Amino acid sequence: MPPEYKVVYFNLRGRGELLRLLLHAAGVQFVDQRVEFADWPSLKSSTPEGTLPYMVIGGKEYGESMPLARYIARKYSLMGISELDQLNADIILNHIDDIRNAVSRARNDKSLTEDQKKEIEAKAMTELLPKLLRRMETRLTENKHGYLIGNILSIADLAFFDLLETSLKEIHNLLENFPKIREHRKRIETYPRISKYLATRPDTKI
Amino acid sequence: MPPEYKVVYFNLRGRGELLRLLLHAAGVQFVDQRVEFADWPSLKSSTPEGTLPYMVIGGKEYGESMPLARYIARKYSLMGISELDQLNADIILNHIDDIRNAVSRARNDKSLTEDQKKEIEAKAMTELLPKLLRRMETRLTENKHGYLIGNILSIADLAFFDLLETSLKEIHNLLENFPKIREHRKRIETYPRISKYLATRPDTKI
Repeated sequence: MPPEYKVVYFNLRGRGELLRLLLHAAGVQFVDQRVEFADWPSLKSSTPEGTLPYMVIGGKEYGESMPLARYIARKYSLMGISELDQLNADIILNHIDDIRNAVSRARNDKSLTEDQKKEIEAKAMTELLPKLLRRMETRLTENKHGYLIGNILSIADLAFFDLLETSLKEIHNLLENFPKIREHRKRIETYPRISKYLATRPDTKI
Repeated sequence: MPPEYKVVYFNLRGRGELLRLLLHAAGVQFVDQRVEFADWPSLKSSTPEGTLPYMVIGGKEYGESMPLARYIARKYSLMGISELDQLNADIILNHIDDIRNAVSRARNDKSLTEDQKKEIEAKAMTELLPKLLRRMETRLTENKHGYLIGNILSIADLAFFDLLETSLKEIHNLLENFPKIREHRKRIETYPRISKYLATRPDTKI
């Protein structure tokens, strides 16, 4: 029987990597289909939302990365255990998504001037990201279990880990004053199913 | 015992109304606290995210409207029953939120020029909204139960109903070609706990 899931995205981490990390963490087999940029124009109109990533689940196609991420997380107990844990995980996801959206607007929104793009990216990197880092450092200091939510790995841990991957390539001392976040990254990197994937995934810039 | 929940928002529908609708639909008592604009500057720094709405749940404060809406929906079986229903509900919420975000940017983003604001709002109203209406009309035609997801009321129904409230005040013939959506609105308006709330809530422009 073929795997029940397929994740279709470019050969980038970007908005597709959280889906891949969740499925690996859950230990679920899936097809990790990576689309070439050259093939995208002809593929676009046949995708469920006109965007990537999309997923094939039980033969049907579904788009929109964050609803898909929450779907996998709910299904494989990666959303947090209690109802309030789930709320807290979802709030963290919103903060992460705000930063991703700002960076993506600053890089891709053709209706903006160059000055506006610079302003939006600067705000994301010098206000939103440091604010998130301070919050997460506090959270990891207060939560003695080494995870952002409760005492097990959740979508919040994976989304936060993934967000910093690109920022760390650009700002090497980003975590200089955040020892708990550095420990947290180690914990994710050595999480058995995740470490196996990280060791073999394609190396991409973003 | 005081109600477990408090919803704190301006005296507007806006981003707070979905929380109120969900709690009314669930038949849960809550304090519907409405903040005067004059009081907002002094209140802002003490809110959990620096924004409204926020909620008080069991004595603790939580911000971010969509995570809060999904929290209430999960807790009171308004998120859809099956895992795929929940995914579909969440995808619809994303579409609705995209339109809200575009309109809100067009009205409030001080870094944009007047021309850019007009362009964003025009795109939301002439592209995104009609596309959503066509999708929801199709969904209501295919789903024989009269709801957007499965056979019971869900967060998707309430969020879609709420989104159209403001648009319908501005575009009276918006639903001329969408008979199923008109029926759907009647179904929500006459849903017992909702109809009682709609009859008594403050009348606000947005």
